[in-house]
Amino acid sequence: MTAARKRVLSGMQPSGLMHLGNYLGALENWKVLQESYDCYFFVADWHALSTNYADTSHIREFVREMLIDWLAAGIDPQRATVFVQSRIPEHAVLHLLFSMMTPISWLERNPTYKEKQEEIKEKDLGTYGFLGYPVLQAADILLYKPDFVPVGKDQLPHLELTRELARRFNDLYKTPVFPEPKEHLTKFPKVVGTDGRKMSKSYHNTINLSDPEPVVRQKLKTMVTDPARVRRTDPGNPELCPVYDFHKIFSPLPVIEEVDQGCRTAGIGCIDCKKLVADRIVERMTPIWDARAKLVQHPSQLDDIVQAGSRQASAVAHATLREATEAMKI
Amino acid sequence: MTAARKRVLSGMQPSGLMHLGNYLGALENWKVLQESYDCYFFVADWHALSTNYADTSHIREFVREMLIDWLAAGIDPQRATVFVQSRIPEHAVLHLLFSMMTPISWLERNPTYKEKQEEIKEKDLGTYGFLGYPVLQAADILLYKPDFVPVGKDQLPHLELTRELARRFNDLYKTPVFPEPKEHLTKFPKVVGTDGRKMSKSYHNTINLSDPEPVVRQKLKTMVTDPARVRRTDPGNPELCPVYDFHKIFSPLPVIEEVDQGCRTAGIGCIDCKKLVADRIVERMTPIWDARAKLVQHPSQLDDIVQAGSRQASAVAHATLREATEAMKI
Repeated sequence: MTAARKRVLSGMQPSGLMHLGNYLGALENWKVLQESYDCYFFVADWHALSTNYADTSHIREFVREMLIDWLAAGIDPQRATVFVQSRIPEHAVLHLLFSMMTPISWLERNPTYKEKQEEIKEKDLGTYGFLGYPVLQAADILLYKPDFVPVGKDQLPHLELTRELARRFNDLYKTPVFPEPKEHLTKFPKVVGTDGRKMSKSYHNTINLSDPEPVVRQKLKTMVTDPARVRRTDPGNPELCPVYDFHKIFSPLPVIEEVDQGCRTAGIGCIDCKKLVADRIVERMTPIWDARAKLVQHPSQLDDIVQAGSRQASAVAHATLREATEAMKI
Repeated sequence: MTAARKRVLSGMQPSGLMHLGNYLGALENWKVLQESYDCYFFVADWHALSTNYADTSHIREFVREMLIDWLAAGIDPQRATVFVQSRIPEHAVLHLLFSMMTPISWLERNPTYKEKQEEIKEKDLGTYGFLGYPVLQAADILLYKPDFVPVGKDQLPHLELTRELARRFNDLYKTPVFPEPKEHLTKFPKVVGTDGRKMSKSYHNTINLSDPEPVVRQKLKTMVTDPARVRRTDPGNPELCPVYDFHKIFSPLPVIEEVDQGCRTAGIGCIDCKKLVADRIVERMTPIWDARAKLVQHPSQLDDIVQAGSRQASAVAHATLREATEAMKI
């Protein structure tokens, strides 16, 4: 690690168990990033409250499972600083300071604000904290002065708001405390769930990193396929089959071509086709499961990693907050 | 101090130098409260940002001057815990946790929200933090689990919101972490300023505790009187004269009767009448000035008091926040 490495910051909400969609969408990318950047990866447990304040009973478990998943999947604490948001009170303090200078209109025009309220209708999201979560996000990011933030296209407005807040702060207090982090655009592959919709915990269609092998195999066995293919002898259309989507992600090209052909000609049945992809998924997940088992057996190792990471993050956050309050003369 | 003493919490925004209005309205009351209650008095410097974020250059000075004023006026650090909000990050953390469970509608219906925006038109108060300041106030209060909060009638809605948040938290997490503090209604005497309007820093009509004697005498000399009394020989109406309001606060009954009569009959001129009240005010302020001078000469004494108070407050705040996060299981 040299001082010249650019810094990347990213976080994840522990609002459920991590699944293959999160793994392929974010963790795989983080593993690449940690090779070239000074990475700060944090579990955004305070953020999880914005949608889960009414039932927080699982957050602690999700935080722990998330850390286990990260490390098991290959996030290397020697290369990346891994920490938990709620251990660093500076996030809450900078959030409070930023709140004072954030026009409400900036938050109300945030496109995901209304969208998400519409999407998650079963919860009351008309809360102050839900409106303000981009402010917390800005504090999360700017405390670490990253050069880049990995985001999907849909999150670009949030990062723009972070940059606007950085500019506003620097202008108001005539001190260039905060950088304007650039996006590191990540093409998140669309991962389907076992019901054919996007894999998402709210749809209960996920394959979780913590699922044991029999559960994964069972979930794949009962996965939906091309609905038009009713009997074994009916030819199917792989383009309409979520199992085929899994093949495209997990299987080598010859297998993909084989099942594509086999499906269209009824040469292969769904059961065998699913078995083929299940083997590949299990193959891909086995090293993660092994690493998970070790971490679960040695809980103090996990604690040490998170403690060291949080200490490191805390030092950076503390220094930045100090600069900010000095600039504000408070 | 015994454990049986009920607890009182109160704070003040350091958004300017303290004046006689603040002294008579709040400090005199605090001095009485500290005799019977376990008092926590704090300088709400983060709150001052809600209206002063655009110019924070004087906040640090105002914090220091406020602490000097409190101690000089008789707040006794042996009896009361005196501290500064921004030294206790738990205020920001609990504010963040509360933000997640506060319906925006509770804040929008807060009567002072729109009123104050109307009142302070020269500043842009359409900020997230300004909308949320009752949330911060609730955190400030509930961290110390006070039995009573001294408030004026106009602040009752805020305290009600604090109680609503306490109930909501206790209900959501099925743990009685927070009490519902009762109001300790304080009749704030209406103190007029040198221009006859309410004494307020925004009107530039204040007599500050930190004003030296010549400044106080000069301000009183040029104070407005009954506008109908133009010449020395015109009889005046004390009821229309702000100087008479000062007499009613600071002069003994015989003097009040004397100037009342003298004014109505043109028996006393405004200059002499003002001189009489100036002597009383100077008499009242002299011990404060003496105490201020000592504190200013021994800055480390002030630092020690605030450090000890903040340490004590921090221990209480830390314990309460721990209870809250345990209840939330985060």
